[in-house]
Amino acid sequence: MTDAPVLALTTGEPAGIGPELAVMLAAAGTPAGRPVAVGDPELLAERAAAIGRPLELVELGPGEPVPEARPGRLPVWPVSLAAPARPGVLDTRNAGYVLETLDRALAACRAGEAEGMVTAPLHKAVIVEAGQAEFTGHTEYLRDACGLDEVVMMLATDRALHAAGSGWQGPRALRVALATTHLPLREVADAVTPARLSRVLRILDADLRRWFGLDAPRIAVCGLNPHAGEAGHLGSEELDTIAPTLAALRREGLTLDGPLPADTLFTPRHLADADAVLAMYHDQGLPVLKYAGFGRAANVTLGLPLVRTSVDHGTALDLAGRGVADPGSLAVAVSLAAEMARRGRG
Amino acid sequence: MTDAPVLALTTGEPAGIGPELAVMLAAAGTPAGRPVAVGDPELLAERAAAIGRPLELVELGPGEPVPEARPGRLPVWPVSLAAPARPGVLDTRNAGYVLETLDRALAACRAGEAEGMVTAPLHKAVIVEAGQAEFTGHTEYLRDACGLDEVVMMLATDRALHAAGSGWQGPRALRVALATTHLPLREVADAVTPARLSRVLRILDADLRRWFGLDAPRIAVCGLNPHAGEAGHLGSEELDTIAPTLAALRREGLTLDGPLPADTLFTPRHLADADAVLAMYHDQGLPVLKYAGFGRAANVTLGLPLVRTSVDHGTALDLAGRGVADPGSLAVAVSLAAEMARRGRG
Repeated sequence: MTDAPVLALTTGEPAGIGPELAVMLAAAGTPAGRPVAVGDPELLAERAAAIGRPLELVELGPGEPVPEARPGRLPVWPVSLAAPARPGVLDTRNAGYVLETLDRALAACRAGEAEGMVTAPLHKAVIVEAGQAEFTGHTEYLRDACGLDEVVMMLATDRALHAAGSGWQGPRALRVALATTHLPLREVADAVTPARLSRVLRILDADLRRWFGLDAPRIAVCGLNPHAGEAGHLGSEELDTIAPTLAALRREGLTLDGPLPADTLFTPRHLADADAVLAMYHDQGLPVLKYAGFGRAANVTLGLPLVRTSVDHGTALDLAGRGVADPGSLAVAVSLAAEMARRGRG
Repeated sequence: MTDAPVLALTTGEPAGIGPELAVMLAAAGTPAGRPVAVGDPELLAERAAAIGRPLELVELGPGEPVPEARPGRLPVWPVSLAAPARPGVLDTRNAGYVLETLDRALAACRAGEAEGMVTAPLHKAVIVEAGQAEFTGHTEYLRDACGLDEVVMMLATDRALHAAGSGWQGPRALRVALATTHLPLREVADAVTPARLSRVLRILDADLRRWFGLDAPRIAVCGLNPHAGEAGHLGSEELDTIAPTLAALRREGLTLDGPLPADTLFTPRHLADADAVLAMYHDQGLPVLKYAGFGRAANVTLGLPLVRTSVDHGTALDLAGRGVADPGSLAVAVSLAAEMARRGRG
């Protein structure tokens, strides 16, 4: 028998590209692990037919063993749509369905049926419109479901891709975590507090050890201001907040470089030494990651008691149902979740 | 006779790597144009000896013709040091010397002796300490010397390098201009005004036409906030300021895409369509540029009545005098200045 980690793969917004990405991946053969789609089997069969990828869907009841992965076969933990789903057409009636797939995946992880979850994109606005006013995304939903105050968003490129690139960076993935995520730019400086930085860096350090097999992870930390504040000439947060916080965390045993100017840090010499980068905010870190990843990057939520990865793109309603969406990011998300799950076994 | 553009190459802070980079470039042979070093000939001879690159230095008087470029030969417009310069040791007595090299280069451009200037790094703090309290850098010095209110900082990668990379971006350089430059992050949002954006984009458009030979340059513009504000959910500046300003500029004939999320814009599909990117602030645009450029990027000042390029790094006092610094960025700066000068001929 295989010991490939079982991964609960939520197929996301049914009007988007999620269902067909799951189909495309299974048709071609999963890159790693044993993904089990969490979604409506009829929807998956429909989309498979629509994009011309016939697929053997294997519905699994609770506790039923997950078969070995095989190209052309997709095991499913069934969750039923509330209303028929048409590609590109959002329907608030299916908002509950999307959340139910998340709950099902979470339950599978907690019950030990799955060793991790991988999420296809959902559509925030339709869930909010359906009455879940407090809904802000997958990450926050999982955080709250696990009763946590803070989780950390990290994006990672495919290791293989990165190694196959210009060659200079060696065989390691680029990993960029964020100290703050979806905030208006003018709120960022005040949100970078010693407390938040400490929580985020402790989570990043702990999870690089636990899920990535790194004994003494080395984290390169960006400054907040250009040139990391240039000794106080371009902002005081590095001197007042970031440097003292890093010093305190080093005394706890974390290995941290910085605060470094972001445009120095993202160069070969510094990246070669770093297991991960901590950017202070969204657009300081993610443009480089997306540029380097070239459609082969995935999102990881750190700080959860389980493995969760995700694609790095949205529902792409305009592409849905046509079989033209790129399953590259989903493939990376699955590979990464499988790798993390194996490492997490200890 | 050659028609290779004469370029005034200021050798910058004498305690830094600037002088030896000029020596290294000349020893190997300039990649383009006819650079004339602006600096102290004895200093250049000393550094050439120190790093083991013997060099024929040709001192030129005012109006004397600049010989054809040849590996191992470096023409010099002499400016004398005020005090002996030791590698790595700053000396306020030489601050005036550094500014004098800039003035000499500027005069050469204005007199038609040179078709552009290329600047090696200077050290801001030592010039300020020497009594020039208002000195904030090359770019602002040249702006003021030319009696201008605004210039635009743009970084560009080497075209050849970029084409030779992963192949996906095609044979074009990556060019990133900045709407704001050296500001603390918390001041950025307020600094992005319609007036500033309009001035910067008009300069960028005009200079892409004038110096880069582009008839209808296409500029991709980043939003200020993550996800370009996500329709107002993550900040209002895109809706209130950026989008209306871009709309007005389109009516003037500019070709502008955006405001786009920075982490979407810096991906192949969007970059393939863009002649340049406008980032709203330093760390939104430059980390990608430096990552992509890998030591082969140069700084260009747009909006001046002359061609000015620069290296994208500092004085590296710790490396000075040892011949280990990388002249890659200077080579790109020289190539780019030569290309711009040729295009600017009409």
